[in-house]
Amino acid sequence: MLINGKEYQSVWMQDGKVLMINQNKLPFEFEVITCRTCEEVAAAIQNMTVRGAPAIGAAGAYGMALAALTSENENFRNHLRKYRDILLASRPTAIDLSNAVQLVYEQTVKWIPNLAHSRLTAQKAALDFARDSAEDCRLLGEVGQELITDGMNILTHCNAGALATVDWGTALSVLRMAHRKGKKFFVYVDETRPKLQGSRLTAFELKQEGIDHAIIVDSAAGYFMQQGKIDLIITGADRICLNGDFANKIGTYSLAVLAQQHKVPFYVAAPKSTFDLTCMNGDEIPIEQRSPEEITYLNGQLIASPDSPALNPSFDVTPAEIISGFITSKGIFKPKEAAHKIQL
Amino acid sequence: MLINGKEYQSVWMQDGKVLMINQNKLPFEFEVITCRTCEEVAAAIQNMTVRGAPAIGAAGAYGMALAALTSENENFRNHLRKYRDILLASRPTAIDLSNAVQLVYEQTVKWIPNLAHSRLTAQKAALDFARDSAEDCRLLGEVGQELITDGMNILTHCNAGALATVDWGTALSVLRMAHRKGKKFFVYVDETRPKLQGSRLTAFELKQEGIDHAIIVDSAAGYFMQQGKIDLIITGADRICLNGDFANKIGTYSLAVLAQQHKVPFYVAAPKSTFDLTCMNGDEIPIEQRSPEEITYLNGQLIASPDSPALNPSFDVTPAEIISGFITSKGIFKPKEAAHKIQL
Repeated sequence: MLINGKEYQSVWMQDGKVLMINQNKLPFEFEVITCRTCEEVAAAIQNMTVRGAPAIGAAGAYGMALAALTSENENFRNHLRKYRDILLASRPTAIDLSNAVQLVYEQTVKWIPNLAHSRLTAQKAALDFARDSAEDCRLLGEVGQELITDGMNILTHCNAGALATVDWGTALSVLRMAHRKGKKFFVYVDETRPKLQGSRLTAFELKQEGIDHAIIVDSAAGYFMQQGKIDLIITGADRICLNGDFANKIGTYSLAVLAQQHKVPFYVAAPKSTFDLTCMNGDEIPIEQRSPEEITYLNGQLIASPDSPALNPSFDVTPAEIISGFITSKGIFKPKEAAHKIQL
Repeated sequence: MLINGKEYQSVWMQDGKVLMINQNKLPFEFEVITCRTCEEVAAAIQNMTVRGAPAIGAAGAYGMALAALTSENENFRNHLRKYRDILLASRPTAIDLSNAVQLVYEQTVKWIPNLAHSRLTAQKAALDFARDSAEDCRLLGEVGQELITDGMNILTHCNAGALATVDWGTALSVLRMAHRKGKKFFVYVDETRPKLQGSRLTAFELKQEGIDHAIIVDSAAGYFMQQGKIDLIITGADRICLNGDFANKIGTYSLAVLAQQHKVPFYVAAPKSTFDLTCMNGDEIPIEQRSPEEITYLNGQLIASPDSPALNPSFDVTPAEIISGFITSKGIFKPKEAAHKIQL
């Protein structure tokens, strides 16, 4: 992605370190964080320095590579296991993290006791994951842009952009590709409380691309649908089950219900790493409950009634039945069939 | 209402001045603003120092009384007309403002050219409006509390509290009365972006009353309904049409759609002044579009991508068909019949 005229990925590996754009500070400050240990990567995932399901997948893959590079020779396998578990525990809902970490772990342990080879394999597996993930996102954008026609008004939620992936984005990859093909459209950007990934990150990315947009509060999406102002909704996902149920940022479920009520097509764009082929349906997805302070404080300032508690589920689950389909690198699929088609 | 152990109304008249609690600063600072002119009252309504449909009705009534007190003898009628129009233009959606201002205006001009009598009448009409409005809210709380049973989880949106009325509140009057009768229940408080009347004001009022509650982001309401955690939704209203369509804070419509989807009863509590007996249906309600900066700034700090536009409709309209009923001082009525029953 272009940021101030320079090409970036959201997270990358360089000289045995993991680097990432600090997404908690964007767009007010552009800062690149350096992680020297796997624990630092896990902390960056947990505190959302890096966020977005495919991006934390790549961060996890790189974290495993760091773990291989920094683990002692003795008990190498145990060390790797420990770091794998630390990474997996950093955030529970997005499956990309688990898919990526497990992939790098399995390829790495294969070469034990040849540690030099294990370490090289870990790095290569992580780099491959990130490269494939970016390419998957680029391709799904090419596929999905066919849904967009001139004059459309499109709504998106949270940030399913290049920042949320290694590059290109999921929902925003679709918008990027349509824009680059010269299509004219307008984007309604849900601000996405509590962490404002929409108004901070999605609006920032659309601005950088020169795509027309306006920020709205999350609860206004229904109003704009009622007014006939929304022609299409595209979001990303954090985990897609075999039956097509999926988890995504809190508020996605409400949007899907409203979209169904107003007959607005609702598509979910996702790379392969977001599919959980072990998960039968949405009931099995763990929903992360984050700190109440994300709601009651903003930039360190109390914004709610002092001492009132808050509940902060970070994701919700949308049933397959109420959405139109999944946009993937292999095609646009009906909700029920996507998890099977993606494997072919 | 009790604030730090002292009884207050949201707005009142004293020594020829209009006083009001500054609701933009609550709960972080308790400040009482003094308005010496009708223009100052109109500005306080516009900038939401005083907000909530019945409260701005009372503020408007008091504003007309101030207008009568401060208008010159010559062209008294023209002066009153000018001030009436200034007050009516301060906020367009809540009908209480128009109902109250028009009422005081009409009673005042009756006594022209007896200016002393006009001025006295203006003050009395304003005081009567405020007293009746508070009593109406107290009564509807008594009526509505019958809907609440032990163990219920109730969701509310925005602040339909004592602060939003002269006293007692609308939705919160129902909760207050139920609580005072010893009923045990839990309240989910939508934070209500952009101005956070839920997390700032509703949570504050519930805390002062000792009612159990937790703040959630607006887009999480659907999640909690899906989880079966919400038994009842009660909101206030800004304008209720003859057919039962009503305007309320942005996000109310989405809640009502989700409530219908999940078969959660959805009630709207309102005093008589919120009914617009000249408005056939929701299409006729003007929706206030407020400043984009309410979304992109918080406490003077930019919180969104710089230079990205925002759209800020402050209200939406919910059709009568998808709600359960209206809670009024005269009873709980079906949506279609409430505007007629309230006149009997």
